[in-house]
Amino acid sequence: MKEISEIQRIVSEYIDKQNFAGAPHQLYDPVEYTIRQSGKRMRPTLCLLACDLFGGDVQKALDPAIATEVFHNFTLIHDDIMDQAPIRRGKETVYKKWNSNIAILSGDVMLTMAFRYALNTDKDCAADMLDALCRVSVEICEGQQFDLNFETQPEVSIDEYLEMIRLKTAVLLGAALKMGAIAARASEENKKAIYDFGIALGMAFQLKDDLLDCYGDAKVFGKAIGGDIVENKKTFMCLKALEKAAKDDRDRLTSILAGKTVFEDKDVKIKEVLALYDKYGIRQEAENLMTAYYDKALEILDSIDAPQKDKSVLREYAESLYGRNK
Amino acid sequence: MKEISEIQRIVSEYIDKQNFAGAPHQLYDPVEYTIRQSGKRMRPTLCLLACDLFGGDVQKALDPAIATEVFHNFTLIHDDIMDQAPIRRGKETVYKKWNSNIAILSGDVMLTMAFRYALNTDKDCAADMLDALCRVSVEICEGQQFDLNFETQPEVSIDEYLEMIRLKTAVLLGAALKMGAIAARASEENKKAIYDFGIALGMAFQLKDDLLDCYGDAKVFGKAIGGDIVENKKTFMCLKALEKAAKDDRDRLTSILAGKTVFEDKDVKIKEVLALYDKYGIRQEAENLMTAYYDKALEILDSIDAPQKDKSVLREYAESLYGRNK
Repeated sequence: MKEISEIQRIVSEYIDKQNFAGAPHQLYDPVEYTIRQSGKRMRPTLCLLACDLFGGDVQKALDPAIATEVFHNFTLIHDDIMDQAPIRRGKETVYKKWNSNIAILSGDVMLTMAFRYALNTDKDCAADMLDALCRVSVEICEGQQFDLNFETQPEVSIDEYLEMIRLKTAVLLGAALKMGAIAARASEENKKAIYDFGIALGMAFQLKDDLLDCYGDAKVFGKAIGGDIVENKKTFMCLKALEKAAKDDRDRLTSILAGKTVFEDKDVKIKEVLALYDKYGIRQEAENLMTAYYDKALEILDSIDAPQKDKSVLREYAESLYGRNK
Repeated sequence: MKEISEIQRIVSEYIDKQNFAGAPHQLYDPVEYTIRQSGKRMRPTLCLLACDLFGGDVQKALDPAIATEVFHNFTLIHDDIMDQAPIRRGKETVYKKWNSNIAILSGDVMLTMAFRYALNTDKDCAADMLDALCRVSVEICEGQQFDLNFETQPEVSIDEYLEMIRLKTAVLLGAALKMGAIAARASEENKKAIYDFGIALGMAFQLKDDLLDCYGDAKVFGKAIGGDIVENKKTFMCLKALEKAAKDDRDRLTSILAGKTVFEDKDVKIKEVLALYDKYGIRQEAENLMTAYYDKALEILDSIDAPQKDKSVLREYAESLYGRNK
């Protein structure tokens, strides 16, 4: 089993070697621009780790791994148009740097490229690989649509929120791991288990993201703290606060979320909402739920039929995501 | 070999049987809305005709055939956002009826569905099928980007225009035919030939579309005549007019195309441009080029190694597209 740093180096070098240029350049420039930004590259890393765990040749999982990264970047480009997000990873988003039309089209071409990369594997597992990617692609569209709906939906339950983040975030981690397992010709049972591990890890990952958005260090996290509060995002924390708060606090929070309360300054708004979270122990609630998902992920990993020392590499990677501060 | 009407009935019945519903309904309603509108369904028809021509079982090409139709509808939904087109097939476009975000996402889900349909075939030809769809998907994005570029590009050559319509229109006809041939396990030579037939047919089809836009009967054609002229589209006709016109007429047309000439009424604009086309025999030029592509298509069809009586069905279908008035 390879070390995490080695897997990350392989991913990074392979992405660097890819040529995303083409004509017309207006279509391909945003592809280059997005892929060359080095995010965590968590999805291809998970894909190769799973392949290695099940004794596969990571070289054969490289193109499917890139597929998950290209696919992830496609979702970011289209989401940023919908959310009108100006900044991503500290840089202008594609729709802002170019325009919406170019962002739609370059996103479309990246979705297609993702399928092409996933196809670039042994012929006998191409169909399984594509099937995994098709599933996740449909689910992510569903998750994003639920997320858009939540903006205007008066009441969102915690279950609905958890289902939305499962679809929008967790399934791609599951699929990336499963695609690595497919390349390694893992058993059906192992493919399912590593997928489930990814789902639980993905849920913990998103809850951590929500926590960092409230309690992170802006300089380390890479974006302003309190963004979700400013944008009235219905996160687990905010929904939990609505559930636990006494009537007057709940009414106040409902009014804030509906955009009915006007603040002189966004920092005043963030401060007030965080004070409500403190009052009702919301940070702890989110940390507890995140830890529960994380523990579940490790429990699934433990149950997988693979050498303990190999599983410890994935465990270590999961720990780094759990403990991350960015 | 089945008759065209039988193939069309099979396509239509199979599409009717499909269930495109799902949750959240905001994502799936536009899918139903678009697919249920019966356009020409030319692409799935061509797919099944090719499968039948090469002795394949059309039942096995049904899902790939639907893939081409779902894919085509995805391109329309995204193109309509980019072109801000309010009406398509006499009905409101998705972005107009719902909104741009829903149109982006439901288009994304349709592109994914197209890949899933293409996968739904014998495992040993799934990779070839997906490869054909991936290629065309990238090319159509390129074609659309070239088309967007032409709006602001001061000079567009006729060659550039022809390459744009090859990418934007012809390649999908070629791919639909090729996918039918793949399902029929046709030889590499035949797959290439039927694809080339589709390219030539697609070029003729688009030139016919440009002609109908100027000289069609609005009631039969289903949209207002002169739309391309009103929108300053750089079509073959307009580019040929620029090439053939004397300096003063060319300057006038250049000014019109650049939106520098203001007209009291769009009908006045259409009338003036059509008068220029008449003066320089542009209608005839377009018909000649269309016929040349059509003849080339038939020549390729003739050269294909398949029974003459079976090829005559595809010839008849090509004739119906050539002679169409809508």
